[in-house]
Parts: sequence; C-alpha cells; structure tokens
Amino acid sequence: MQGILSRILQPNNTKIVLCVLDGLGGLPLNGKTELEAASTPNLDDLAKNGASGLHIPVAPGITPGSGPAHLGLFGYDPLKFEIGRGILEALGLGMEVTRNDIAIRGNFASVKYEGEVPIVTDRRAGRISTEENKRITSKIVNEIHEIDGVKIRMDSGMEHRFALVFTFPEPVEGGADNVSDTDPQIVGRKPIFPNAGCKEAEHVSTIAEKFIKHVSRIIRDEPVANYILLRGFSRHPNLTPYSDAYGLRAGCIATYPMYRGVSKLVGMEVLEVADNSIRSEIETLKRHYEEFDFFYLHIKKTDSYGEDGNFDAKVGVIEEFDSHVPEILKLNPDVLVVTGDHSTPSVMKSHSWHPVPFLLSSSNVRGGNSSGFYERECLKGELGIFKATEAMTLILSHAGRLQKFGP
Amino acid sequence: MQGILSRILQPNNTKIVLCVLDGLGGLPLNGKTELEAASTPNLDDLAKNGASGLHIPVAPGITPGSGPAHLGLFGYDPLKFEIGRGILEALGLGMEVTRNDIAIRGNFASVKYEGEVPIVTDRRAGRISTEENKRITSKIVNEIHEIDGVKIRMDSGMEHRFALVFTFPEPVEGGADNVSDTDPQIVGRKPIFPNAGCKEAEHVSTIAEKFIKHVSRIIRDEPVANYILLRGFSRHPNLTPYSDAYGLRAGCIATYPMYRGVSKLVGMEVLEVADNSIRSEIETLKRHYEEFDFFYLHIKKTDSYGEDGNFDAKVGVIEEFDSHVPEILKLNPDVLVVTGDHSTPSVMKSHSWHPVPFLLSSSNVRGGNSSGFYERECLKGELGIFKATEAMTLILSHAGRLQKFGP
Repeated sequence: MQGILSRILQPNNTKIVLCVLDGLGGLPLNGKTELEAASTPNLDDLAKNGASGLHIPVAPGITPGSGPAHLGLFGYDPLKFEIGRGILEALGLGMEVTRNDIAIRGNFASVKYEGEVPIVTDRRAGRISTEENKRITSKIVNEIHEIDGVKIRMDSGMEHRFALVFTFPEPVEGGADNVSDTDPQIVGRKPIFPNAGCKEAEHVSTIAEKFIKHVSRIIRDEPVANYILLRGFSRHPNLTPYSDAYGLRAGCIATYPMYRGVSKLVGMEVLEVADNSIRSEIETLKRHYEEFDFFYLHIKKTDSYGEDGNFDAKVGVIEEFDSHVPEILKLNPDVLVVTGDHSTPSVMKSHSWHPVPFLLSSSNVRGGNSSGFYERECLKGELGIFKATEAMTLILSHAGRLQKFGP
Repeated sequence: MQGILSRILQPNNTKIVLCVLDGLGGLPLNGKTELEAASTPNLDDLAKNGASGLHIPVAPGITPGSGPAHLGLFGYDPLKFEIGRGILEALGLGMEVTRNDIAIRGNFASVKYEGEVPIVTDRRAGRISTEENKRITSKIVNEIHEIDGVKIRMDSGMEHRFALVFTFPEPVEGGADNVSDTDPQIVGRKPIFPNAGCKEAEHVSTIAEKFIKHVSRIIRDEPVANYILLRGFSRHPNLTPYSDAYGLRAGCIATYPMYRGVSKLVGMEVLEVADNSIRSEIETLKRHYEEFDFFYLHIKKTDSYGEDGNFDAKVGVIEEFDSHVPEILKLNPDVLVVTGDHSTPSVMKSHSWHPVPFLLSSSNVRGGNSSGFYERECLKGELGIFKATEAMTLILSHAGRLQKFGP
C-alpha cells in the first residue's frame, strides 16, 4: 500500500494523534471485558460520533509480539518486514541502531574447559542476577571498544541477557547478518562457531569470532558466567521513514525503550517525557504540539497489567487515560485515533490474537454506529474489521492528506 | 479471482441488472446522509428482503477516480490494471480505442520562437475557449489524416485540452506507450522531445515527433494557441472481456462518454439512449432486455451534484431513481444490484474513500438484516464490508452462474 501512497500524498497542515494503549483488547471476566468494565465517558462520546472498528494486527488467529504489532499499526507489513531479534533486544535496552550496525542478543553462559575446548554446562549461567550481569558487562566494555575498526557496544539486560552492537564504517550489506547462532541449545556440547551463511556475512563472522575469543579470556575466571553465547544476528530493517512514506513529521511519546526504538526505526523523533505517567506523556504532547504533524503516544501499563492477569488494574489504566482525553481534544487534532497494538486479555495473562478496538475521531466520518468504546460496539462500527496495515491509510485520508487515485 | 471463475462458470439464462449511481455514498449533513434524507420506499423494500453491504472501491482510505472505481466494480483489480490517462481522455471524448491504438492527452500551448526553437510561454494557451479549441482542432484534423501509414485521430476537449489517437495497422506491443511527456512543466523552457523509453516505443516516438512538427507548422500563426504539448501516452489495457471472464453478454446503458468507453474496454455493447434522463435509460433497458444477460446501468447525476455540494439535488436524483425501481422489477431480473462506484459526499464536494452502499436483490439471499437502503443499515447487511472486485463473483453466484469449486 505504501507504494501507492507515495503517488497520492498531498501536503496538508492537519494534525494527527495516534494513541496506542498497549494490549488494549480484552476478554470478558464475569461477562465484561476490561473496556466494558471501565467507566470511559469521554471515549464513549468519541465512539458515538466517530468511526470505529477492530484491527487485526498480523493475520486472523496470529498473536503478535510488540515489534510486529507496532510495525503493522505503523503501516509496515510485519509478514514482510521483520525487525531482527538482535535489533529488538538492542532497542529494548535503549541502544541506538543505524544502517551501519549489526545487533545481536547475547547470554552469559557457564562452560568447563576440556583442554582449550569450552563445553557448555549452563546456557544461562544459572540466570545470574541483573547486578552481577552489570558488573561483568562493565568489565568487558572497559576492555573492548573496537575490533579491526569495527566499534563494539554492549549493554546488560535482565539476568543473563545482554545486547551487542557492531558498528561498521559503512552501511552493512544485505546478507551481512546471515551468521549462525553460537548457542548449541544442549548442554555438554561446545559452542557453535559463528558461521557466515554467505559471502556478505564473512566480515561479521570474523568480528564475532574475535569478540567471543577476547571476552572468553576476560571472563575466564568468573565463578559462573565465564562464557558468552550469541544469537539473533540482525541488521537494520531499512524501513521507509514516515517522512517519505507518509509525508509526516512524526513525534514519538513513549517511555519504554523498545517502543522508542521501533519509532526511531520508522523515522519518528523521540520526545522526552518527564516520567512514566500518562500525565507526563500528555504534557509532552502539549509542549511539542506545534512541531509535528503526527504523534504516536504509547501507554504501556494496559499491557503490563494484562500480562499480570490484573483485570482491575488494567481497567484503572483505561479509566486514567479516558480522564486525559478532554486535554487531547482541547488541542483540536484533525484526526484522533485510540487503539491498541494487540490484545492482552487479563484472563489469559498474555498477548492474544483477538482483533483490537479502534476508534477514529474526525469530521469526515459517518458516525452514529457505536454506542460506546468497547469490543462489541466497535464491531458495529463503520470501519469494520480491517488489517492493522490499513490503519495509516485510513488515518491519512481522514486527515485530508491523500489525493484521488487515478483519473 | 477471475482466474478461478473461468474454471467454474456455468451457463444459465438468468438476467442481471447492475445499477451504478455514481458517487452514491455520502456523509451526514444535519445528522443524515443523502441516502438517509432521501425518501426511497422501493429501495428500502428491496433492502429489507435483499442482501446488503458496503464495498471498498480500491483499498481502505483510498479515494478512487471514476476509472479505477468502475474497473474494480467490474471485477478488474484497479491496483493491477490501470487505464492510462490518454485512454481515459480519448474515451471521455467518445473516441473509439482498440488494441491497435496509442491514445494521448494534449494541451494547446503558447510558445515564442528563438530562431527555430520554440520556448513555452503558456502551457495552457491562456485556457482558450472550447469554441476556439474546436476551430483550431478542425484546422489540424483537416490537414493530417495519416503519418507513415499510421492513422491520426484528434478530438477537442474543454478549454485547451484535446485527445489524440494513433491507429497502427497491427496491435501495439507492450512498452509501445513508453514515450515521455513533452510538457516541460515550467514556462521559459523548450518542449521536451517525445523520447522512447524502450525499443518498442521508438515507432510511436517517431510518429509523435512528426505529428508535433506538422501541427506546429499548421498553427504557427495562431495568436495564442500556436503549439501543442503531449502527455499520458497509453495503450489499450487488454482486459479480458466480460464474455470470456464471466460468460456474459453485457450491455452498457450510460450517457456519459467516459463510462461508455470503459464499458467498451471490458467488452460490453454500448446501447443507444435517447437523452440524459433516467427515464430514457430505463426505456433502453426495456427495449434490449431480451438481448443481453447483464446490464450495467449508469446514473451520473448523483456524483455531479455531490461534487457541486448540492445535497438536496443529490437526494432528488436518488429519489428519482427510486421511482423507476418498480419498472425494473417488472422485468423480473434474477439479480438486481443497486450501488455506486465510489462515494461523493455533498459535504466534501469531492470523491471520497468511504465504503459504498451495496444492495443485491435475488431469491437466493438470507435477507432481513437491514431496515432500509442507506449506509448505516448496509453495515448490518449479510454481505458485510467487501472489496469492489468481489462484487462480480457475488453477482454471478446469486445468478446461478457458478459451479462448485473443487470436488
């Protein structure tokens, strides 16, 4: 679809606000979903006069991770464009990733040496503490900055996990990330060599080999975490940025690193938010309102409480967001969308495949089809059930930013 | 979809009438859309007992021109098949276009000569009057009939516009229309040479060059329109005709040249209509009813008044059409469809992306879902929201013209 869009984009000075309540869609507990249980007078008013529907993040029945779910909503087909595991891990830790980078997920592991051959005895180094991880990571980072002119960045994650970024002097070629995982998957075996799957990956393979060797010397005497395993070698997904794809200056208002990172991948400018509260996010929106055409505002806690199985707390976050809706409306955006990236029903304590409520408020809608903002009423809405990748086209058209297709 | 259809078509003597009220879909003015404001007792009765839904002409959020919108409704994916600008211009002026033709849009322009080099001073020749255009076009047409065995046809359009058709002795090859526009887009420059973009286009390029030279001699002394600019070189889209794609003898009842032209492209026979009135169109339908399996009946004025922003007049055309529905029903078609090619909300004064109301009346429907024929009730209908390209399959199945797919 983005191919056609580039032909029919038209400049406009309209403003768009896309609010993504993470994991918004739910399932009933005692007959009511989280959205049905929540008191949301402001969203209900918008739903009565707006266009509603439900979007399918990837495909019917497919439960998406946060990466694919966001890509889809941003208009990039998640079945076509994949953000590699290494990239997501790095973004999640707040590391910058560019077209010159190869990003990799790592584990600290335990090995015993048979002669000079390491044999894996624990693939996760007994899930060492995050503190312990930080200590060992610092040790490595202090010693290794560069290998053969390739800049090395490493950051510690939770427990035994870390992310690694190799920065080359030039953008990396297609295929450069085709390097095999070194995790043997089974204890009692030696780590796998980071094999290049094609010619373009040979340089990355060499750097990875040298990095592993150097690290294994540095941490050889650690009591538990005395080795590393690398997997998910990946390169920047090279997505067409929002400015080119949609003609939009886009700003991201999100507090979690992963969402800030994915936004950066699609060319959004990531804005500062004072703290993790919805109030602070709204303040950021107000402060930067004149500077951008499009705002992506991300609320994380609906998903977190959904994953926890905390139905009431998820309801609470929805109600808290609803109370801020009048402030957003005061800014008078031409298109306001409230939706989720996927469903996270509290009763399932996990992401799910269920279509996600979608509400679009604009002066160019038919309206009058839904009596409130919740799953069953969205089903009656004029947008019907549609693919997440179609959301951006709908948003652009309602914002007067698309010309007619064809004569 | 047409690929599967050819395997499961079955002959039948059922009759189908597809009524297309151009730009039918609307948006509310004082709470009611044009269809809601119109009194349509006959259509409402059909909706109560029929199958209704809404179709998406091209893709969600995409506003179609009339060409792509009609292609889609006729079952040809408008994202795959494009009718070139030159073809549409020629069809719009009522010129015949075949597989042997290259059609081109033209402008009369003003140039000054620096030595023998023309420099464009006005790309539209001051938007000369349509009368003036006709006079100059006659002058050219009287002098140029053929160049190197290629027949030349030219017809005047509105103001400075005209259409041009080169007819070759043989069907033109793919790529033959890959000739660059000659309009430099900016005044003060000389016209661009009609360059061939590939080998197959070289012959067309040569004919265009000779035509431009000859014309520039003929009109050199005109006070304003003393040059021509050509653009939108295009060839016949080679669509599978209705007879092959659907096994239907199809008749077109339309009064505007563009719609008659597009119908011809898909192999419909274009029938004579006494005048522009709906009454005359219905008379044509009655007169030819025994000769065809399928009728496409086009009503233009819903769109024209929509574009004018004349809500009440659009309502009036809908009501006028409704009053003729009983006459159509008297013919007892096996499938009667009433829909639009796209939406043209009067409040927007333009085509729009909004899904288009669709009503299918047949004895093979579930029915009982909609209480009337308008957007909000169509949303409750058994056909749901579907792609325009799926309409023909729905029509054929309800008409008993498709076998089971697979054993």
